[in-house]
Amino acid sequence: MPDKATIANWFQQLQNDICRQLEAADGRGRFREDYWERPGGGYGYSRVILGQHIEKGGVNFSAVHGSMPEKISQALQVPPGNFFASGVSIVLHPVNAHAPIIHMNVRYFEMDHGIWWFGGGIDLTPHYVDREDAARFHGALKAVCDRHHSDYYPAFKKWADDYFFIRHRDETRGIGGIFFDRLSSEGGFSKDQRFGFVRDVGEAFAPLYASLLNKHKDKPVSDQEKNWQYLRRGRYAEFNLVYDRGTKFGLDTEGRTESILMSLPPMAAWEYDHQPAAGSREAETLGLLRKGVEWV
Amino acid sequence: MPDKATIANWFQQLQNDICRQLEAADGRGRFREDYWERPGGGYGYSRVILGQHIEKGGVNFSAVHGSMPEKISQALQVPPGNFFASGVSIVLHPVNAHAPIIHMNVRYFEMDHGIWWFGGGIDLTPHYVDREDAARFHGALKAVCDRHHSDYYPAFKKWADDYFFIRHRDETRGIGGIFFDRLSSEGGFSKDQRFGFVRDVGEAFAPLYASLLNKHKDKPVSDQEKNWQYLRRGRYAEFNLVYDRGTKFGLDTEGRTESILMSLPPMAAWEYDHQPAAGSREAETLGLLRKGVEWV
Repeated sequence: MPDKATIANWFQQLQNDICRQLEAADGRGRFREDYWERPGGGYGYSRVILGQHIEKGGVNFSAVHGSMPEKISQALQVPPGNFFASGVSIVLHPVNAHAPIIHMNVRYFEMDHGIWWFGGGIDLTPHYVDREDAARFHGALKAVCDRHHSDYYPAFKKWADDYFFIRHRDETRGIGGIFFDRLSSEGGFSKDQRFGFVRDVGEAFAPLYASLLNKHKDKPVSDQEKNWQYLRRGRYAEFNLVYDRGTKFGLDTEGRTESILMSLPPMAAWEYDHQPAAGSREAETLGLLRKGVEWV
Repeated sequence: MPDKATIANWFQQLQNDICRQLEAADGRGRFREDYWERPGGGYGYSRVILGQHIEKGGVNFSAVHGSMPEKISQALQVPPGNFFASGVSIVLHPVNAHAPIIHMNVRYFEMDHGIWWFGGGIDLTPHYVDREDAARFHGALKAVCDRHHSDYYPAFKKWADDYFFIRHRDETRGIGGIFFDRLSSEGGFSKDQRFGFVRDVGEAFAPLYASLLNKHKDKPVSDQEKNWQYLRRGRYAEFNLVYDRGTKFGLDTEGRTESILMSLPPMAAWEYDHQPAAGSREAETLGLLRKGVEWV
């Protein structure tokens, strides 16, 4: 049964692998790294890339431990005690408005009394929805899920739809993907099985995004399309600052602000009551930001 | 004793007066108006200006009523029942990086059982702190306060410092101003006295901002200064989306999203771990974004 050191080491290796692949996909940008320590216990490596195609990308690794704040143990509905948490978390904002924003996270949590679980997911936020991309993206995630359990994709796809939802806008953040949390031994799974699934999710990420970026990175972008990209990034910031549990958890527990907010866009805009023209690609995209769309 | 219709009418008149003065200060932009109705009761006028000097400005008036959601009555620690709320709320983002962002709000709330109170405030968020502006701004607010009670300015200045604070950045949103809430008959005040104070706050706003805008609107702005302005606007968005109670209340109670989020900047930026050069005006500004600075 993999122990926490094995799992954290694997995550750290994943950060390395992903950064190498993203640098290759960008073709010019190089990650800068900051090492940080958590006063209460643990450390992390925050890496950021400002590239020619990836305008701003953050790839964070952390492995932290300590005594669980009571507020958090209550929120997680676990008994008080010591915890260990490790994971990799990524958000990439591309230069080109036709390439999508992407988010990936894989994480492991354990505490006293033999409690452990994995969580994570990958979801895509295109500025312009491309149905072919959407089908390929969801198809790839479904293939990863199906290798592990036939219930995974439908359950985790729905979870992503429900989670990445901007309630005050009545729209999803993007076209979803998969989201899962508290994958434990419940349901008769071994820790090896759950970890195997999470490893496959983590490894699927970089090739998937490299292919999407490569498809769109050199497309011409009009001023109108650039403006729309800024507006969609504004929505992304709204979701992350108002609803995202990881962001909220990080800020509430006095995590490293620069690492937590690495997900925010390099440049974003808000216009009062912006309404795309009927029949435009912008209007089509808005119409597709709904829960329950079957992309595959 | 002023009744709710009198107060709401006065707020609506204030919106008109302020919009006229801001159009004059801008010299070109004209407010666009949207009328909206609240399904549960009440209405509002949202006005927005995209001008030559005011890049984006929102001036909202609303007068809403109905049955108070239980969640809200609990949060406000009042008994369940019917409520009435009216007010004017403003955020202005100037074009010129040397001109400050400003926020103003005056509001009245009442409900069954004779409960009533006023709230509001004005606070300034300069991209670059200008000590002369800061002294004049706080001096003007102090003069308004002092006409009503000698305790007002020190108490409400501290309240603004504490309220407009971005905890995860350990910095204030700007140089503060005054903030007050639940000004009732407590302390031996009449409703006329409290309303008189709120009227003076409301009327002080437009001339104060017009003068600040006029001082800075034609100053040259370098690319570095423009970039800093975008970063400071990013902080403004962080405060409003993560901490601002009015925004949270509005989104939680399914208020009109476009009116609530009118406060967000037209364009904003986030850079990973941005550190201004030692001794720069940007570093000086950061050093002044602290609680407890006595500007007057």
